[in-house]
Amino acid sequence: PFTRGIQTVTLIPGDGIGPEISAAVVKIFEAAKAPIQWEEKNVTAIKGPGGRWMIPPEAKESMDRSKIGLKGPLKTPIAAGHPSMNLLLRKTFDLYANVRPCMSIEGYQTPYTGVDLVTIRENTEGEYSGIEHVIVDGVVQSIKLITEEASRRIAEYAFQYARNNQRAGVTAVHKANIMRMSDGLFLRKCREVAEGYKDIKFTEMYMDTVCLNMVQDPTQFDVLVMPNLYGDILSDLCAGLIGGLGVTPSGNIGTNGVAIFESVHGTAPDIAGLDLANPTALLLSAVMMLRHMGLHDHGRRIETACFSTIRDKKVLTKDLGGNSKCSEFTNEICQRIQDMD
Amino acid sequence: PFTRGIQTVTLIPGDGIGPEISAAVVKIFEAAKAPIQWEEKNVTAIKGPGGRWMIPPEAKESMDRSKIGLKGPLKTPIAAGHPSMNLLLRKTFDLYANVRPCMSIEGYQTPYTGVDLVTIRENTEGEYSGIEHVIVDGVVQSIKLITEEASRRIAEYAFQYARNNQRAGVTAVHKANIMRMSDGLFLRKCREVAEGYKDIKFTEMYMDTVCLNMVQDPTQFDVLVMPNLYGDILSDLCAGLIGGLGVTPSGNIGTNGVAIFESVHGTAPDIAGLDLANPTALLLSAVMMLRHMGLHDHGRRIETACFSTIRDKKVLTKDLGGNSKCSEFTNEICQRIQDMD
Ligand SMILES: CC(C)[C@H](C(=O)O)[C@@H](O)C(=O)O
Ligand SMILES: CC(C)[C@H](C(=O)O)[C@@H](O)C(=O)O
Repeated sequence: PFTRGIQTVTLIPGDGIGPEISAAVVKIFEAAKAPIQWEEKNVTAIKGPGGRWMIPPEAKESMDRSKIGLKGPLKTPIAAGHPSMNLLLRKTFDLYANVRPCMSIEGYQTPYTGVDLVTIRENTEGEYSGIEHVIVDGVVQSIKLITEEASRRIAEYAFQYARNNQRAGVTAVHKANIMRMSDGLFLRKCREVAEGYKDIKFTEMYMDTVCLNMVQDPTQFDVLVMPNLYGDILSDLCAGLIGGLGVTPSGNIGTNGVAIFESVHGTAPDIAGLDLANPTALLLSAVMMLRHMGLHDHGRRIETACFSTIRDKKVLTKDLGGNSKCSEFTNEICQRIQDMD
Repeated sequence: PFTRGIQTVTLIPGDGIGPEISAAVVKIFEAAKAPIQWEEKNVTAIKGPGGRWMIPPEAKESMDRSKIGLKGPLKTPIAAGHPSMNLLLRKTFDLYANVRPCMSIEGYQTPYTGVDLVTIRENTEGEYSGIEHVIVDGVVQSIKLITEEASRRIAEYAFQYARNNQRAGVTAVHKANIMRMSDGLFLRKCREVAEGYKDIKFTEMYMDTVCLNMVQDPTQFDVLVMPNLYGDILSDLCAGLIGGLGVTPSGNIGTNGVAIFESVHGTAPDIAGLDLANPTALLLSAVMMLRHMGLHDHGRRIETACFSTIRDKKVLTKDLGGNSKCSEFTNEICQRIQDMD
């Protein structure tokens, strides 16, 4: 497994429970002998020239070199005009694809079993353009921006992802019956790209119909690709089906190999520092990261140890229904990895 | 129950299975001696002066007189530039509030029990403004329009609905963290209106968070109010929780007492005319209509007969898991109503 040499990853521990769950991931990676060297960076936004918010130069510079980041939850800053850190990171590194696999976790009961789908969200435009106007007093417009280029790029990513991950189908999610031009353009690009992937079954479905079908039988879905806001909504909905944001991984993918993997739950300030947090979402995001880096073997071992720990129900954090501390859950996973050797 | 005299309702049977399920409702209303006189009208869109699509004058004129409509499913016309008939109706009669109660139906099993919530959707603006532009080749904008007036109106409706229906809380659903101006305006109006309803608990929640929480535990929600697109998505999601569009009623409410109640499922052309359709969604919409008209007693009797028929599982249509025909299901409900006398 060491043939590729040691690779550097920028670690952004984050706020609240971020440092604890990041430490848990670092420990588990050591147990798995993952050939990763961490470069820890803080990313509290600072005000740059012209008063624009930006991420600190050291963090930016580290990411520019390492290309790969792992990030814990960041608290939303309260300063007026301060952007969400998540949005700032997506923008700074042009992370155009948000990828969230949702798989039922054996032993962690929800109303659904056998969920195995992936939402792929366009991450740079759409309803998140930030362009808004007051037309006259009491009348406001927000602009949803859809471009051919970004639509083609995300569609291409989705089909390539499906092919690389032995997925059978891609569904384009849209409301082109209502937003005929914008969602129409998005849908047209999906159809065009689909032409080049005859091995992947292409379907299209209205966003409202997807949500209805999703809660009735999520097992009918495979890879789903969609504009920004639908992705925001649907990825959270799907996370809910399998147990919530505490167990759902997420990756933000850019060009030239740049990517940031993150847990998308909150900072949970009420339990921060108490060794009670559940590191699963960040750990599974780190597993996605390993696969993205071609380290499939390390990824599989860590994932197996994590899932078997949850399945056996002996050492679980509170939110997973157990009584164990974060450190105990972490040690259990480490032990299971070592037992594989 | 006859003290108010007989009221006229415009009946729009619709396409596909529309006529059958409308006939079922008419029959059940007769059994319940509901003081309703039907005025049946066709609403295939026609081209008016200047080439604008409009609903036929006789139908418009009937609705203008009766104020109340009951409508089956309408097939989407395929002519270029033809609007959705549903949108045309909402627009023609300024039906600004779409109301969908979602209640778990005893005996009809889904992964959820105890669901009892109502989505209230702003029905006239938002992402449905229809304003779109091509900026340059490959760059398209859709405009989401939010006005103070429409936001205040729908918020007022939601709180008044909550009060009239003994509901404890109203949740405003939004993405004002992203669309700060438009959803921000919507949210501000909700907060202002909430001030006048100290008896109703007001909460606000992001749309993505609502969807996540909804699939984890829908019983935590009561009345939800939101802009157009979120309502489109969330109302379908909630319908999915309790069994789908075949059992979910819907009402579109305007000013001055005008309202159209409708089943929101499709026309099911494959089974049209075969006496196989399930009239439940249209029947429950008609029950909403009776309550809207102040005919609570008739509404309750019909609803009770419908729910007890489903609960007893002896006479059910195919989609409900049975083997009975539409007419048999209808007769069973009529019988149960007569047995109440
Ligand atoms: C934090 C917020 C800006 C963000 C979004 O709306 O995209 C979040 O919901 C997400 O999905 O990452
Ligand atoms: C038919 C379509 C135009 C409509 C909508 O998008 O509003 C439908 O989904 C609905 O919810 O009534």
